[in-house]
Amino acid sequence: MSKIQMFEKPLGMRDSFPDVNEQKEYIRSTARDFIKRKGYDFIKTPSVEYFETIGKASAIDESALFKLVDNQGEMLVLRPDMTTPIARIAASKLLKEKNPLRLAYYADVFRAQQREGGRPAEFEQLGLELVGDFSPYADSEIIYTAIELLKALGVESFRITIGHAEILSAFLTNNTDSTEQVEMLRQLLVEKNLVGFSQMLDSMDLLEEQKERLIKIIDYTNNSNVFSDFRHFLKDNQQYLIDQVEELQNLLEFQLNDFSIISFDFSLASHMSYYTGMLFEIHAAGSGFSIGNGGRYDELFKQFNESVGATGFGIRVDRLLEVLPKQLTKEKRTLLLFDKGSFSKANVLAEARRNTSEYVTLQYAESVSDIEAFKQIFDEVIIVSEGGSFRE
Amino acid sequence: MSKIQMFEKPLGMRDSFPDVNEQKEYIRSTARDFIKRKGYDFIKTPSVEYFETIGKASAIDESALFKLVDNQGEMLVLRPDMTTPIARIAASKLLKEKNPLRLAYYADVFRAQQREGGRPAEFEQLGLELVGDFSPYADSEIIYTAIELLKALGVESFRITIGHAEILSAFLTNNTDSTEQVEMLRQLLVEKNLVGFSQMLDSMDLLEEQKERLIKIIDYTNNSNVFSDFRHFLKDNQQYLIDQVEELQNLLEFQLNDFSIISFDFSLASHMSYYTGMLFEIHAAGSGFSIGNGGRYDELFKQFNESVGATGFGIRVDRLLEVLPKQLTKEKRTLLLFDKGSFSKANVLAEARRNTSEYVTLQYAESVSDIEAFKQIFDEVIIVSEGGSFRE
Repeated sequence: MSKIQMFEKPLGMRDSFPDVNEQKEYIRSTARDFIKRKGYDFIKTPSVEYFETIGKASAIDESALFKLVDNQGEMLVLRPDMTTPIARIAASKLLKEKNPLRLAYYADVFRAQQREGGRPAEFEQLGLELVGDFSPYADSEIIYTAIELLKALGVESFRITIGHAEILSAFLTNNTDSTEQVEMLRQLLVEKNLVGFSQMLDSMDLLEEQKERLIKIIDYTNNSNVFSDFRHFLKDNQQYLIDQVEELQNLLEFQLNDFSIISFDFSLASHMSYYTGMLFEIHAAGSGFSIGNGGRYDELFKQFNESVGATGFGIRVDRLLEVLPKQLTKEKRTLLLFDKGSFSKANVLAEARRNTSEYVTLQYAESVSDIEAFKQIFDEVIIVSEGGSFRE
Repeated sequence: MSKIQMFEKPLGMRDSFPDVNEQKEYIRSTARDFIKRKGYDFIKTPSVEYFETIGKASAIDESALFKLVDNQGEMLVLRPDMTTPIARIAASKLLKEKNPLRLAYYADVFRAQQREGGRPAEFEQLGLELVGDFSPYADSEIIYTAIELLKALGVESFRITIGHAEILSAFLTNNTDSTEQVEMLRQLLVEKNLVGFSQMLDSMDLLEEQKERLIKIIDYTNNSNVFSDFRHFLKDNQQYLIDQVEELQNLLEFQLNDFSIISFDFSLASHMSYYTGMLFEIHAAGSGFSIGNGGRYDELFKQFNESVGATGFGIRVDRLLEVLPKQLTKEKRTLLLFDKGSFSKANVLAEARRNTSEYVTLQYAESVSDIEAFKQIFDEVIIVSEGGSFRE
């Protein structure tokens, strides 16, 4: 081998060793059980899709796509998210059978990384999509289910920040003079670069009152649940957007015992460019990053020739792991060491213990080079030899 | 879009719809539970690896590799099997902590397909590897565990055919004049092309008695458990190979109530070129293909600078699905339809039923375009309206 070392893995690719893997399995099975009881069906889509169908429609930046070329010369991508493949599958088949449609997934998604030591290039995402419902009940179901799921998983301290893609667009458009200005400012909000946002405003040829209003959006709504005052930033034909958010707030208040975990922030913007209505981010104590996000994305379905409402969320399992208390495996681990002539006896003993859900390793003693080190790994060691069996 | 249709997927790529997905989940969770009780730890490796480390070492033909190039210009592959990544992870880290090492996986593997309507290009494989043990006890553990796992999964009728890579090599070498002849004949056995094997013999410049012996290997051992006669086809310094198989047979006889599911066939050859000792295939009633295979592959570890014994097996989940009786979801599916003003009441009712493990879909009635069709999907429909709630 030339430059690449024997044990090396590609940029951002990681192994999950047994302990971490079991933590993920706990998340996976708890989440699956919880989500199915909410009436969602789990599906699986291929890891590899056409760039033309999924790569282009996805909200993920093209530079983050893993691309490959198939035998026919077509460009393929490793799926960068699950929302777009689910839109494909819903539009092509499942919506005809069930509408509204509730689908869920636990899947690996892929985002190419540019630097060493950076973010993972493959990670597990867990989420659900409610397709075929334009109503605020669907939005509230999505946010409420995300909250309840996090509680079911044992996340103790988290906050939900809710914004609205169209309100932000309306507000930016009302207070600037061009779509270029809107896009530049929106991008800085996506990056949560508030200093950059102020500097950008300074450099823009806008009226002072426009600039003042634009600055206000950052200070104003953050960590506040009173946003009716925000109405005067919007035109008459935009007021219905605030109605939507108020209705969503009412529905969530019905459901939540503790509404203080929710805050509204109309400066919230997502790198997922397909959101059209409410959108939200989840932050938990213990992770510097958002552990999940979601929103309404009605426009995405137009790419698959359907006009349906759709709303959903995704949670990153790697970030959940950072904020969850470690689950310890409860099962006892036993080692049964046998010698020549005791194989049959050791077998019977092993099977009896396995039937009580014990984890039993049956090992021919002669094959173990460092037997003392090997024994240390287990909770109990039983030696089965021709003389009989005894515990260590 | 040009040639590629909106809903199209790449060659050999498939969606798993909810019903099939739940069948797979049943296999996954049953197998995980069973395998952990045998003392194996589950791990996960990246979907993407370097061609230099995993692609080249893998036993999968290069034409079946999905290749891509990363930002640094390095060639990557989608993992074509799990045995090679597990060898990497074992050699680089885990064998230092635990030796012998028992690892298991349930993972997607990728094999590029050349034709439409052919085999899947991505499928789930379930398997385990026992690394660090040269003894026949390890081989018997692997075969016995595969058998017990199939029973635990509910596979009713299956057979295990056991061969030996070195015995076949010795036999072919003893009865031919060149390594080219050995390889040509071996390849025909891999393809199970017995007609081609005979024709190839006819065309080869060999002694009549060599040809007779070579033909015999096919007829002789198939479906027979008496193979001591085979000793006279091997030289004195090759007899120990028959000893190995006899010991394996003895160990399996100790463990199995019904030994008739096992047969020995020394013409068995695998497309997995890394096998060095015993190897086996699993065939089940209901599938024309082998549903799984395994064997000893000590040589693979030399590529990762380790000299350890290793043996394991993998089972294809797609083929298991063909032979398993369909599992039906037992959970009751309830639809709770509510109208404006009944949201809160419907919510309380839904949560109460979900707590008894019922699958409850809570749906705002106004959002459903074809309400009669939607109701048909559920076992029970409850309508919650301002007048009260009633069943349909």
